[in-house]
Amino acid sequence: MSGKNVFYAQSGGVTAVINASACGVIEAVQQNRQFGKVLAGKNGIIGALREELIDTSKESKKSIAGLRHTPAGAFGSCRYKLKSAAEARAEYDRLIAVFKAHNIGYFFYNGGGDSQDTANKVAEFSQSVGYPITCIGIPKTVDNDLPFTDCSPGFGSVAKYVAVSTREAGLDVASMAASSTKIFVLEVMGRHAGWIAAAAGLAKDDPLAPPHIILFPEIAFDKQAFLKRVAQTVKKVGYCVIVASEGAQYADGSFVADAGLKDAFGHTQLGGVAPSLVDMIKLEHGFKCHWSVADYLQRAARHIASATDVEQAYAVGQAAVEFAAAGKNAVMPTIVRAKTKKYTWSIGEVALSKVANIEKKMPRGFITRDGFGITPRAVDYLAPLIRGEDYPPYVNGLPAYVRLKNQLVPKKLPRFIVD
Amino acid sequence: MSGKNVFYAQSGGVTAVINASACGVIEAVQQNRQFGKVLAGKNGIIGALREELIDTSKESKKSIAGLRHTPAGAFGSCRYKLKSAAEARAEYDRLIAVFKAHNIGYFFYNGGGDSQDTANKVAEFSQSVGYPITCIGIPKTVDNDLPFTDCSPGFGSVAKYVAVSTREAGLDVASMAASSTKIFVLEVMGRHAGWIAAAAGLAKDDPLAPPHIILFPEIAFDKQAFLKRVAQTVKKVGYCVIVASEGAQYADGSFVADAGLKDAFGHTQLGGVAPSLVDMIKLEHGFKCHWSVADYLQRAARHIASATDVEQAYAVGQAAVEFAAAGKNAVMPTIVRAKTKKYTWSIGEVALSKVANIEKKMPRGFITRDGFGITPRAVDYLAPLIRGEDYPPYVNGLPAYVRLKNQLVPKKLPRFIVD
Repeated sequence: MSGKNVFYAQSGGVTAVINASACGVIEAVQQNRQFGKVLAGKNGIIGALREELIDTSKESKKSIAGLRHTPAGAFGSCRYKLKSAAEARAEYDRLIAVFKAHNIGYFFYNGGGDSQDTANKVAEFSQSVGYPITCIGIPKTVDNDLPFTDCSPGFGSVAKYVAVSTREAGLDVASMAASSTKIFVLEVMGRHAGWIAAAAGLAKDDPLAPPHIILFPEIAFDKQAFLKRVAQTVKKVGYCVIVASEGAQYADGSFVADAGLKDAFGHTQLGGVAPSLVDMIKLEHGFKCHWSVADYLQRAARHIASATDVEQAYAVGQAAVEFAAAGKNAVMPTIVRAKTKKYTWSIGEVALSKVANIEKKMPRGFITRDGFGITPRAVDYLAPLIRGEDYPPYVNGLPAYVRLKNQLVPKKLPRFIVD
Repeated sequence: MSGKNVFYAQSGGVTAVINASACGVIEAVQQNRQFGKVLAGKNGIIGALREELIDTSKESKKSIAGLRHTPAGAFGSCRYKLKSAAEARAEYDRLIAVFKAHNIGYFFYNGGGDSQDTANKVAEFSQSVGYPITCIGIPKTVDNDLPFTDCSPGFGSVAKYVAVSTREAGLDVASMAASSTKIFVLEVMGRHAGWIAAAAGLAKDDPLAPPHIILFPEIAFDKQAFLKRVAQTVKKVGYCVIVASEGAQYADGSFVADAGLKDAFGHTQLGGVAPSLVDMIKLEHGFKCHWSVADYLQRAARHIASATDVEQAYAVGQAAVEFAAAGKNAVMPTIVRAKTKKYTWSIGEVALSKVANIEKKMPRGFITRDGFGITPRAVDYLAPLIRGEDYPPYVNGLPAYVRLKNQLVPKKLPRFIVD
């Protein structure tokens, strides 16, 4: 007889490779008699609360394998943060009831800092009520802001997308600059940490090559210094490519994206960093500008995923199963970079209690003194993470991403309302 | 002794594959003793006027071959429309003087409708002054609005980018919709014609799959009908993916992008279609929205180019040389689709005088009756154009695009000022 079932759920903003972690979990569980089935939460932890559990054993081997090359969250994700057990006892009781009803002994939670915190709380609570659940966090975030891991699965692929796109759009504006567009602004994700914007710096293969200016949330935005640098760059290079974190902010913490625009009713509109910067540049210098907001395109871009990232995402899923099989609890697998010249990595581990709610920002030493670029140290850190291409299969010119059946197991408990 | 030199120039907005056409021209010229060198205009026709001629024979065979996989305009493009010879006689005289000074007998102009018009004017003028230049237009435009050709090189790749991105971002919002983002709006190019937005429809592999709404410049924007459809879609599917042409407009011709926003000085700001639509949806329905503006990323995205498009772009460059060798003049090679079930194409030709200044819009029969989608006829037309992948080579995780030396031939004439 096989052992207890594994609950797996995806949490927070999805990535190009979070399904590769799911694939790693499911394939590893299928190879180990110690476990039962993988039951996936429909829309993350909400699925556990609502007893909406997807039976992954109903999917074909091929579909599960296809998760490795399919972006976004195949089981649905959620933005839902469990409060403490003291504040939200009913939810914790419900989780335990659902886990008991479905013979679930393992809780694998695939997400960022908040999710690791949730996994840790579930581990503690389950212990306290005498139904101990083995809780393993699986790291995921495009923001790369998880501590104790060299990088976060999901980041390498968005970094590759941003570096490739910056190189390509840079060639475009260079072609147009003599008689038309001289400025291109690319807005990328990163509300609190500038890792994604930093990755654009990998496109710079020559001192005059784009990007010419990178704006990080970690560096206070100085409008005059920025506008001066734009003018200098156009004078020297003929054009200027700017990559801006969505979280770029002034010294007082107000966002550059808040351009002071008002709609017909006088309501303030948060316009995005890219159009705000373009308005400033047009007003001051009169240059013709183009701008792009990558938004979901960047984190869903499985078509240009980093092979390194895909491997790591799969490996942390697999490691979660190995950790559970080895009796570990309340831990998260990490990516450990070897201190060798050639990039190699292995899987490490960290206690969930340590990971929760810490944001890893860009070290100041990764940003040039002027605040507008990345240093060779940053390049050394970032470059290996985007290496390798891992193309999905194509049918008729489009990526053949899998769509699961997502069949729910029959419910056994009364309804539970989740707001 | 080899024959007269060929002048080649890139014009207007660049594409992921315009350099593949340049590659086709240069490689075909090198294989034909009837021609001298290819001298490329630095920044399009401006290079001819300024006598800034790039000697492509100084580039290695490998660099020229690399143009096939390098996006944007390797010699620089321009936005510069020659007036008629009556209005701008000095410019026409200058062109002839430069062509004579550099033994140029062929003028190959790689661009959209305006460029074909320019090539035609040069053909006529050169004839009239007794120094006949063989003028061949080479089609290029992401907008796909050139007449007489089944499609325009450059379009297939942007179409593929938009279809792939729509599929990917659609999976993302589907993952998030249960507890967070329910709306995703992607803004794509197309000021007057909706071909690019239409291509997003290729991502729809199921009646409920994204995109759910496409907005075309050809269909008057009806705000109430749009908002109603958004709500219906969210009710039925759980989320809604919208792809909007930048040129989407109301019945009175005003742009949806003009959202009536005002800056601190009271100046109206043209905000982009995507944020305008998002503001409408938020105000009416309160859904959480995400939006993306693809801008240059879409037309520079050589990393996800359509193999069909790359082949066609190369072929029209090659055909220009063959046409010139065969004594043809004032013509443009076209893509001719065979009337077979399986998609096949060949090269045809059309007189430049016919092409100039006609915009091919989406036929009404390609757009669904409700105005929000594409018909099976449109799918039949569009689907073959995005087929096949043609990946560039990668080094260290980034595409290895070529950078030419772009060495100018020594000037022989006095300076000529171009405004």
